[in-house]
Amino acid sequence: MAHSSVTGATVDTHASYLYEQLAELIVGMIENGALEPGMRLPSVRAVSEEHRISIATALQAYRLLEDRGVLVARPQSGFYVAAKHRGTLALPSTSRPRTKASTVSISGAVATLLEHASNSRLVPLGCSVPDGALLQSKRLDLALARAARQHGARYNVYCPPHGEPHLRQEIAKRAMRFGHALSPDDVLVTNGCTEALVLALSTVAQRGDTIAVESPTYFGFLHTLEMLGLKAFELPTDAVRGVDIVALARLLETETVAACLLSSNFNNPLGSIMAEADKRALLALLARHAVPLIEDDVYGDIHFARERPKPFIALDGGANTIYCSSFSKSLAPGYRIGWIAAGAYTQQVMERKLAFSLCGPMLPQVALADFLASGAYDAHLRRIRPAFEENLSRMTCTIEASFPDDTKVSRPAGGFVLWLELPKRFDSRALFDEALEQGICFAPGDVFSAGRRFRNCLRLSAGYEWSERIESGVRKLGRLARARLAH
Amino acid sequence: MAHSSVTGATVDTHASYLYEQLAELIVGMIENGALEPGMRLPSVRAVSEEHRISIATALQAYRLLEDRGVLVARPQSGFYVAAKHRGTLALPSTSRPRTKASTVSISGAVATLLEHASNSRLVPLGCSVPDGALLQSKRLDLALARAARQHGARYNVYCPPHGEPHLRQEIAKRAMRFGHALSPDDVLVTNGCTEALVLALSTVAQRGDTIAVESPTYFGFLHTLEMLGLKAFELPTDAVRGVDIVALARLLETETVAACLLSSNFNNPLGSIMAEADKRALLALLARHAVPLIEDDVYGDIHFARERPKPFIALDGGANTIYCSSFSKSLAPGYRIGWIAAGAYTQQVMERKLAFSLCGPMLPQVALADFLASGAYDAHLRRIRPAFEENLSRMTCTIEASFPDDTKVSRPAGGFVLWLELPKRFDSRALFDEALEQGICFAPGDVFSAGRRFRNCLRLSAGYEWSERIESGVRKLGRLARARLAH
Repeated sequence: MAHSSVTGATVDTHASYLYEQLAELIVGMIENGALEPGMRLPSVRAVSEEHRISIATALQAYRLLEDRGVLVARPQSGFYVAAKHRGTLALPSTSRPRTKASTVSISGAVATLLEHASNSRLVPLGCSVPDGALLQSKRLDLALARAARQHGARYNVYCPPHGEPHLRQEIAKRAMRFGHALSPDDVLVTNGCTEALVLALSTVAQRGDTIAVESPTYFGFLHTLEMLGLKAFELPTDAVRGVDIVALARLLETETVAACLLSSNFNNPLGSIMAEADKRALLALLARHAVPLIEDDVYGDIHFARERPKPFIALDGGANTIYCSSFSKSLAPGYRIGWIAAGAYTQQVMERKLAFSLCGPMLPQVALADFLASGAYDAHLRRIRPAFEENLSRMTCTIEASFPDDTKVSRPAGGFVLWLELPKRFDSRALFDEALEQGICFAPGDVFSAGRRFRNCLRLSAGYEWSERIESGVRKLGRLARARLAH
Repeated sequence: MAHSSVTGATVDTHASYLYEQLAELIVGMIENGALEPGMRLPSVRAVSEEHRISIATALQAYRLLEDRGVLVARPQSGFYVAAKHRGTLALPSTSRPRTKASTVSISGAVATLLEHASNSRLVPLGCSVPDGALLQSKRLDLALARAARQHGARYNVYCPPHGEPHLRQEIAKRAMRFGHALSPDDVLVTNGCTEALVLALSTVAQRGDTIAVESPTYFGFLHTLEMLGLKAFELPTDAVRGVDIVALARLLETETVAACLLSSNFNNPLGSIMAEADKRALLALLARHAVPLIEDDVYGDIHFARERPKPFIALDGGANTIYCSSFSKSLAPGYRIGWIAAGAYTQQVMERKLAFSLCGPMLPQVALADFLASGAYDAHLRRIRPAFEENLSRMTCTIEASFPDDTKVSRPAGGFVLWLELPKRFDSRALFDEALEQGICFAPGDVFSAGRRFRNCLRLSAGYEWSERIESGVRKLGRLARARLAH
């Protein structure tokens, strides 16, 4: 057992500091397999007693390893071996999309995918939505029940179009955590992030305009572009570092772009994140060309590194950025509450909001405001982040064991989806049809591109609690992929 | 007392039938003021005993007067003198809008109005929204509380984009009550009726197209047209009989119209309703020109006549009609649940729904489905219809007593708003500013027209429970209007 292994081993007295010795010992045990990913380490007290070191020293060792990503701390539970055994498969290649804007025509494929993805009889790898069982949002639900029972009549009115005032206040407060000061007046509550993006896009762009997006990018973005009659220019995107700024610079020199639409953090489907310096360079570039940035930060709270990465708006002070987000990925997909901070565009966005949906439902906003004010959201995030990270790790392990050997797989820095790249000749559409017959849903790669590229890729969601059903679904998918390639 | 007056009077034996004699007697007593609007009549049993007639005969008399709109039946309570003492003021004139499509530019005025209308310190005559205290939706709120408490985790998922299946089923079932057979598959749940209308309009029309609307028409329609870049052609509309079909026929002969957007019943702000024969003629006309009809039936359930009037979709079987409605006016403005039945356009509407807002929140839909399935909605409607009718009657009386003598006022057949027309030189915008200073909000007439006509008109909402505050607000408004005209 992990417990006895660590406490029973001897600390190497040649290492400079006791805590470093203990850390090295633990790393060694992970490398030789004595400690496996997901295992709980003995308590700090047990280790200190066993090795006759102070509790502070033992804790220092654990913290060091946590900072290095070797261990993961879980509040009220202890330290665990990080689910970081992801190394045998290569990363997907940086995309090389065509250098022309494309008219988007993807609505049929998206509708079909979403229909299958909402079919609960299929193994749920298709939709990037977190599992209710994993989210455990009981406290939020109880806040809703309380508000409905006690103040139903008071709240049975149209919500102010900007959103419920306390919720706007709580959202503005939270923005401080990623380093951007917002006032409640800057925040407009929306029907999920999707509506926020529609409001932003329809404010800054006209039918026929071109929007620069990542490649691959979330199919929902593409679908919205299609419905608004906008064209997509797909930017080369690295699976780790995100958008290629040089390519964006080239584009801006030659073409008129109405806006750039990017994930703030952890691109869906890649899980990539731009370095802060790159983000700043991108913002400077866009500002120089007076092209607004629309950012989608729905995955930003699900980061695996210790610090929450900053969205673009925190780096340019919102001068040229429209920030969109929601609580759908991190807390409550069922509540459908998103928000937008549109800076100079606030008035125009508000007018569109009034015309498109007037306002949102009242009680879910009241409940969410309550939940946020209670401070429960941070504890919630501390719980779900390692859970998603572990899910991704287990899924990666299962992919390694079952998919073709030359499969490439992303290493997301946050969120809960994986992007798989198979050899060029692989057809994920054919696999999709076969998988559906076998009771498994995933997202085929071509819906992540306006040009319908990435037919050799697929996205798997790890939003559901890991289970025998999920694991065998991934395994079966791997076998089907192998069989297809062997043909 | 009303009670003793009726039972004590003598039935005139010269009238042909006993029940007619009794009916005439009651009408006489109302005319001479012995029975006042809102008074309860003696029970059928008491009348039958007093006049020595059968219970059936007494009931026949009451029913006759109910059908004539003289009495109002309230379930579990008895018969009341209808609040129909609205005769001293003339009806607003039939509108004569310009015979050209207008570009709409109304968003600023609408945003300002809505902001004032949501200010709870102002007397609430501005927004056509029912009062939570009057709606008494406790049973719905408890259904929400129960669903959240017991099944929060199960429902913390994205709702199927078409809407929660049970809710779609209940909505489809209810359509039978207005004579149209729908299957749950025909129904798509939306974020209020506003989203339904946006989906419908953006499906059948392109930027620059012309939409035919009533005049005056709901400012929300105009705002949505503006945001979608659509032009409005305003049709002459009668305060009682609704749209002038001859004018529509003329329009269709000369101009290309992408769609016609009408209230199904009780136009906001007029309260007008087209006769069924006129509705059929209008449908035939539109079908001949292959122009789809988009109808908004949000007030349809709040009818004062015995029968619920049929919407257009029930008259053409949905062949050329997109039906939009919601529960915001009749049950739950705070829940923000609407729906659309788009017939042949269902697939296209669905694709737009996915791109514009993906799906709606889950738990409010679950609660509403529960509420509808319980049968409570019909009892609820039986309670609120006479309440709104009485509100309108009291407001009309107050207007008669306080507004200038040549004020014209609508006589709505349903809903809860009144349209007032003052002499041509009257400026309701100036009155609006003055009223705000005095703590009263109403809707100035010009926001109900793309051409910003009706500056001499205003809309008052009677959606709030009648109170001293409301009454003195209306009274003060009347005095201000008088003073303006006297200048």
